[in-house]
Amino acid sequence: MKAIVNVYLKQGVLDPQGKAVHHALGSLGFEGIKNVRIGKQIVLELEAKDEQKAAQEVQAMSETLLANTVIEDFDIEIVQ
Amino acid sequence: MKAIVNVYLKQGVLDPQGKAVHHALGSLGFEGIKNVRIGKQIVLELEAKDEQKAAQEVQAMSETLLANTVIEDFDIEIVQ
Repeated sequence: MKAIVNVYLKQGVLDPQGKAVHHALGSLGFEGIKNVRIGKQIVLELEAKDEQKAAQEVQAMSETLLANTVIEDFDIEIVQ
Repeated sequence: MKAIVNVYLKQGVLDPQGKAVHHALGSLGFEGIKNVRIGKQIVLELEAKDEQKAAQEVQAMSETLLANTVIEDFDIEIVQ
């Protein structure tokens, strides 16, 4: 079973990496971009067979280690 | 219109960040994890109205700047 955790900065938190990419895309001639935000995508391969239990485990992992919940939000997707 | 670009290391390319997170999760008592890979998720807010044209633009952005296609793959998702 696979779990995908997307971790992204909360709205209102400054994203300097996103700003830099936005600027660089502009310099390369790409126009019509309103905003760029950059987050992490963590793909976990799990031995668990039970989807609900896996989701609970991954929720705990995300809160404990994968995301800094002061400035980041996350969502979890379980894929077979 | 929003475009989400997921950039991840190609299979076979060593992911030290993923290995470190795998190890850290083990130290925290999380078991049953076979593998961890870490990628980037780039969210672009676009002014474009035409979905197909937006996808082409984002494809070009990804190949030019967002992904290093020597070691990374990417996929693009267009969200309204």
